[in-house]
Amino acid sequence: MSNALNPADLGRRAEAMLDELAAISAEPDRLVRLTMSPEHRRAADLVGQWMREVGLEVFEDHICNVRGRIGKPPYLVLGSHIDTVIDAGRYDGPLGVVAPILALDTLRRMNALPPIGIEVIAFSDEEGSRFHSTLPSSAAVAGHFDPKHFDLKDAQGISFVDALRAYGKDPSKIHEAAIPRRQAAAFVEIHIEQGPVLEAENQPLGVVTAIVGQTRLQASVTGEAGHAGTVPMKLRRDALAGAAEMALLVEKIAHEFAGDAVVATVGKIEAQPGAANIIPGVVRFTLDLRTASDAARNAAVERFEREAKAIADRRGLGFSVDPIHEIATTPCDPGIQEQLARAVGSLGAVPIPIASGAGHDGLMMAKLCPFGMLFVRCKGGVSHNPAEYASPEDMGIAIAALIKFIEEFRTAS
Amino acid sequence: MSNALNPADLGRRAEAMLDELAAISAEPDRLVRLTMSPEHRRAADLVGQWMREVGLEVFEDHICNVRGRIGKPPYLVLGSHIDTVIDAGRYDGPLGVVAPILALDTLRRMNALPPIGIEVIAFSDEEGSRFHSTLPSSAAVAGHFDPKHFDLKDAQGISFVDALRAYGKDPSKIHEAAIPRRQAAAFVEIHIEQGPVLEAENQPLGVVTAIVGQTRLQASVTGEAGHAGTVPMKLRRDALAGAAEMALLVEKIAHEFAGDAVVATVGKIEAQPGAANIIPGVVRFTLDLRTASDAARNAAVERFEREAKAIADRRGLGFSVDPIHEIATTPCDPGIQEQLARAVGSLGAVPIPIASGAGHDGLMMAKLCPFGMLFVRCKGGVSHNPAEYASPEDMGIAIAALIKFIEEFRTAS
Repeated sequence: MSNALNPADLGRRAEAMLDELAAISAEPDRLVRLTMSPEHRRAADLVGQWMREVGLEVFEDHICNVRGRIGKPPYLVLGSHIDTVIDAGRYDGPLGVVAPILALDTLRRMNALPPIGIEVIAFSDEEGSRFHSTLPSSAAVAGHFDPKHFDLKDAQGISFVDALRAYGKDPSKIHEAAIPRRQAAAFVEIHIEQGPVLEAENQPLGVVTAIVGQTRLQASVTGEAGHAGTVPMKLRRDALAGAAEMALLVEKIAHEFAGDAVVATVGKIEAQPGAANIIPGVVRFTLDLRTASDAARNAAVERFEREAKAIADRRGLGFSVDPIHEIATTPCDPGIQEQLARAVGSLGAVPIPIASGAGHDGLMMAKLCPFGMLFVRCKGGVSHNPAEYASPEDMGIAIAALIKFIEEFRTAS
Repeated sequence: MSNALNPADLGRRAEAMLDELAAISAEPDRLVRLTMSPEHRRAADLVGQWMREVGLEVFEDHICNVRGRIGKPPYLVLGSHIDTVIDAGRYDGPLGVVAPILALDTLRRMNALPPIGIEVIAFSDEEGSRFHSTLPSSAAVAGHFDPKHFDLKDAQGISFVDALRAYGKDPSKIHEAAIPRRQAAAFVEIHIEQGPVLEAENQPLGVVTAIVGQTRLQASVTGEAGHAGTVPMKLRRDALAGAAEMALLVEKIAHEFAGDAVVATVGKIEAQPGAANIIPGVVRFTLDLRTASDAARNAAVERFEREAKAIADRRGLGFSVDPIHEIATTPCDPGIQEQLARAVGSLGAVPIPIASGAGHDGLMMAKLCPFGMLFVRCKGGVSHNPAEYASPEDMGIAIAALIKFIEEFRTAS
């Protein structure tokens, strides 16, 4: 039936809808759409209208998600988020809301709706930009909302719970957002890649294998500050020279764990006292290390700590490490991956397996049901930036693949 | 005659005088004595009184230096500064003012004043802490005062020239501070080392060979910012990894130029955007490179620029360098060095030759006359810090050496 699919047309329609959503911003010159803001209200209303237009029964839960259903449970749940970072691009989130709406529209027109129920969700708070929250909206749907969120405050000092009430919601009814376990067949999200792999592979779509685990550390190197002119090299204990060696160690370890696709980053570094004519006495830097293999991640971190300590010892420096946070890997369901790959392949594209280095609502939805993601190539791997771009062609193929996936969807055995 | 010298007693007297000066501060809990401040006035009055007590004829010039003379020209000029950095130690500067006063007192009591005239100067502005000035007070004595200083402003917005007038001086008479060239036989300063060499050599005194030349650069490394989770290692252009390699290159070059006692420091480093989860797109760092050999300095800087560029090229990074400043080496007069070394040796100490990595008033006084410096061991090499310390024993030996030097002083041939 889906031989009638017209990916080019689907892509153009998606682009027009994304443009319409991108015009809804708190600021005229950049895209800022924080959760529970007036802009969120307007975007939610627009999405709700689109959902109704394709025949979905629309409701909002009390964590501000917009939800549209068709058919009977169990539901194949599809969706993404409509909140943004500050100075955002137009694809991160909205593409994953627009895509299933267009897919359902197509299926309905072809009279090809599947026997299983479908639910489309526009999550209210994935970026956490307003409250530094941790996926509260998908957590609520998965039945794991953490009431600690209520006390979080935004930059204006408004608490999460007050913002929720001002948005017209009842905090005591958040639990009603949860989908009962047996009514959730799977959760699938379409999202731009936010990385350069698909572009490098020259393919439009990737099938996500997992959301990678992550270790974040703060490292401190302590030497002895001194006058840059008066302390001979052999009498120095230069904290920055030690930290530089450790930053290269980070890079070396990541390359040596290439088989496990470890990525490791020193993103922040600070030398104290931080004057051109003073040998740094203390240097602090961050380490962010990620991979889909928790065993490899732990081995790489352990190796960093051991070898960095050896560098410090050899240089007569102090070295310490403070954990910032640690997140275990969330694998995607193998059956969903296989079905997504088949759908991509049926369109003549090569489904590239990719581990997602960024977090997504799937981290929470995976607690509820089998979970999978389809990545769409984005230009230069750029995201969280107005330059973010996915082509209508690639988006059209993604929506076509989603249609194929829905048509062929079988619940996990 | 100077067999009667009692270094221990001289050291104790010096310490008492330094304590008295250190009590003169703008703040009760730390030593802050900026040029042309009320504290400067009080310190200048105390020093003037000391000078008079040892028989010097005292005057102030119009750049606020306190000056005491005995005998006829040409003058052997001795001295240092009485302004301080913020949160200073008590030795940097004042020791070089107190030492010649005590030396002259001793020579007078022994009835051993030399045939040559002596002038003791307490310079008013060596640290430049108030106006970011460049040795204006010694420049004026050397006949090289730069009127550009007049427009410099302090943290309160007060200009140098207004501060000068408020201190009771006449800016149009600064030129009268200059010593005519034929009337200046030599300039010799006693100063704490501000480095750890004498402590490592286990000797109280060093004879300065030169004030080292200095090149200061700002380096910029440009890569591509990206998500720390989504960009594979092989697709990264990480500005911080490149900068880390360059910081180690700095250290390596300094070690390879050890024969020329090159010291090189990366004191300041900044990664942008500077978040734990973002690959740094731009890193800026400073390079401060010093040695007494201008040829070695230029060769080392050139090598840094060439090899850092190669690192950047290999990593696909941009690299640029902006000069901040460059100062040529100021050698000490060989005859003065020899006479100082002889004086130190006559006291049973080993005169350690040291290049001064920090700047001093000698940079200006060298434009007027032969110039030399005696360094005194300081604890841990610490300076510009309340923990700064030179022992009374070492200060006493320094003053005794100065007395010997004055007794034996011969003008350069």
